[in-house]
Amino acid sequence: MYYLTRLVEFEASHRYWNPEFSLEENHRTFGKCVSPHGHGHNYILRVTLAGYSDPRTGMVLNVKELDRILKEVSSEFDHKFINADHPAFHDRIPTTENLAIAIWQRFAPKLSNAKLHRVRVYENHDLFADFYGEE
Amino acid sequence: MYYLTRLVEFEASHRYWNPEFSLEENHRTFGKCVSPHGHGHNYILRVTLAGYSDPRTGMVLNVKELDRILKEVSSEFDHKFINADHPAFHDRIPTTENLAIAIWQRFAPKLSNAKLHRVRVYENHDLFADFYGEE
Amino acid sequence: MYYLTRLVEFEASHRYWNPEFSLEENHRTFGKCVSPHGHGHNYILRVTLAGYSDPRTGMVLNVKELDRILKEVSSEFDHKFINADHPAFHDRIPTTENLAIAIWQRFAPKLSNAKLHRVRVYENHDLFADFYGEE
Amino acid sequence: MYYLTRLVEFEASHRYWNPEFSLEENHRTFGKCVSPHGHGHNYILRVTLAGYSDPRTGMVLNVKELDRILKEVSSEFDHKFINADHPAFHDRIPTTENLAIAIWQRFAPKLSNAKLHRVRVYENHDLFADFYGEE
Amino acid sequence: MYYLTRLVEFEASHRYWNPEFSLEENHRTFGKCVSPHGHGHNYILRVTLAGYSDPRTGMVLNVKELDRILKEVSSEFDHKFINADHPAFHDRIPTTENLAIAIWQRFAPKLSNAKLHRVRVYENHDLFADFYGEE
Amino acid sequence: MYYLTRLVEFEASHRYWNPEFSLEENHRTFGKCVSPHGHGHNYILRVTLAGYSDPRTGMVLNVKELDRILKEVSSEFDHKFINADHPAFHDRIPTTENLAIAIWQRFAPKLSNAKLHRVRVYENHDLFADFYGEE
Repeated sequence: MYYLTRLVEFEASHRYWNPEFSLEENHRTFGKCVSPHGHGHNYILRVTLAGYSDPRTGMVLNVKELDRILKEVSSEFDHKFINADHPAFHDRIPTTENLAIAIWQRFAPKLSNAKLHRVRVYENHDLFADFYGEE
Repeated sequence: MYYLTRLVEFEASHRYWNPEFSLEENHRTFGKCVSPHGHGHNYILRVTLAGYSDPRTGMVLNVKELDRILKEVSSEFDHKFINADHPAFHDRIPTTENLAIAIWQRFAPKLSNAKLHRVRVYENHDLFADFYGEE
Repeated sequence: MYYLTRLVEFEASHRYWNPEFSLEENHRTFGKCVSPHGHGHNYILRVTLAGYSDPRTGMVLNVKELDRILKEVSSEFDHKFINADHPAFHDRIPTTENLAIAIWQRFAPKLSNAKLHRVRVYENHDLFADFYGEE
Repeated sequence: MYYLTRLVEFEASHRYWNPEFSLEENHRTFGKCVSPHGHGHNYILRVTLAGYSDPRTGMVLNVKELDRILKEVSSEFDHKFINADHPAFHDRIPTTENLAIAIWQRFAPKLSNAKLHRVRVYENHDLFADFYGEE
Repeated sequence: MYYLTRLVEFEASHRYWNPEFSLEENHRTFGKCVSPHGHGHNYILRVTLAGYSDPRTGMVLNVKELDRILKEVSSEFDHKFINADHPAFHDRIPTTENLAIAIWQRFAPKLSNAKLHRVRVYENHDLFADFYGEE
Repeated sequence: MYYLTRLVEFEASHRYWNPEFSLEENHRTFGKCVSPHGHGHNYILRVTLAGYSDPRTGMVLNVKELDRILKEVSSEFDHKFINADHPAFHDRIPTTENLAIAIWQRFAPKLSNAKLHRVRVYENHDLFADFYGEE
């Protein structure tokens, strides 16, 4: 049983704003993140698969196949302003937590021979969220 | 269920010395770390909280609140010679293991809406200790 | 004569678009960077000062003073969509080169006892531009 | 109960090739990694021990002792072409997964006072495998 | 006048061996690097161009064009055992210094609108060589 | 002509204090760095040599020889409280600038076949000083 982890970077922007909050409440809660046109990050997406290694390749999942899925998922976010450009975030705040679960929901069904163990999203090197599929 | 991790750096010095050991035994056990006035590190403290995300903010704990607690805890160690300046280490060796449990004991009671999952203390990028609250 | 370098991070978004180009020419030239609402980066600004050290402090410039200036300059960009939010970029493409010269122009006049030697802007760890004041 | 983690780097080369595959199948499966004389990495080996801290030293295992074991194990791979130079890989593909289990098997028996919790092998900063002893 | 720097990684192996030295002299001079089948690194190639920015794009050289050249040059080394696979190193020791000049000689003639200022080759994060075209 | 750069880390503590300043003036100037028993850093020393490569080795200076000198110089500071333990700093403030010149003065005379080009001292990843021998 191995846990194989792979990283991919995507460069996106986001904004924190709750339409049910007053302007003042948004500022108090989200600080500089309420800036109307958003701000950005070099996000790092780090997925971990759990599985047995294929005796013919010595790998849990061929890294080329893993990269293909990672690219498919991350391209929904890469070079985008997430709030405006991604339908799942029109009415959801794109925090690292919410990005982690959204990526899990897109990534997990694409795997056949391995199990998704963890999705980690780094906003920068000081802050990240992990989601393990436990809702 | 999310695991949210945040980092803070503190710059401190420490010394390894067991008063019950002879000078020779201290040198054999701790090597260069017995240097009498201590030596230092850019410590990294990395705390992980476990919790559900608040539907109004999309966060396990507001990062501003988390930073306030982290600063409160890390300032006990930041820019200090831990052995001399921190009461908990007058008679305890400030290893990464002992720093991790001391920080857990200070950090955990300050949280209300989330659970402390892990405290990790890096002395440098080659050595770190994790504590999960299991004594 | 010393060269003292200090870093600060700012989190911003930008878009590449030349209004004199056709849509097709913009896509061919700038690729994914034409995405209409922008995308983002954890920018790193790294300024280098040249000077003699003050014998009373042993520093080219007191780091506290340097940090005050860095914050003043970087806050014009931090948590902003540069194209929309910064007047100097309403009609200028916010490439790393153009950010480096804009930051030089704001930073240099604020220094009194040291000389600005270099402004470096990292968009990510793979790409950065240096400007030394030579126009 | 603490988890103590230590890193060591080793610089090695490897090749992916399954003798039961045709040339074409090897190329399709392993891409550039089939290059006949191998290619290399700055591998990072990161071992985690679980244990109680020794009250006389404040450490799970004396870091000097841990380093001695790490060096003993990593020197089997350091500055080697793993496929040709390491007997365990004459007929096994040296993927990160297979390196992780091989290192576990060599490392675990050398520990007396602490338990090996995890072996992590990074091939580069984008790819790594974890092994926890569960076969 | 800007200096634009771009990075690319290549994963290769190499061996240090001077055929005019005795076995003993090779060992004394090159230590573990004489290992007969080589050992490897995640090399980082960092090229810096000097030039004026194109007013239509705000860039010294379009990053897409720069990446195309970088890929062309680095692919001569990527996933190779440099001594055996690269003709320029059949009778030259592949030190970081010799790699830097070899890459300069291949890279410089491919540039038309900008000047190559520096080639830097990192063998790992502790060792790198710079070449500025001064022979 | 090559520029070869090598890194070494040393772990030390220091204190900023000018005996000619009042307590209040020391606090205003140096902030938390006046803490009486010092605080610490994982310092990184990065030396750059300029020279021609030896045709027999392909290196400006044999890395083994360079490491021997680096160790000799850095061991004066490693695992020390610089103010108390290093004679050159009994009456000099151990800023990164002052450490860079002190290291230059110790390092340069030990070189025979290459020229010292630059000494860089990082206190942490956000602050460093360069010295090129120009007094």
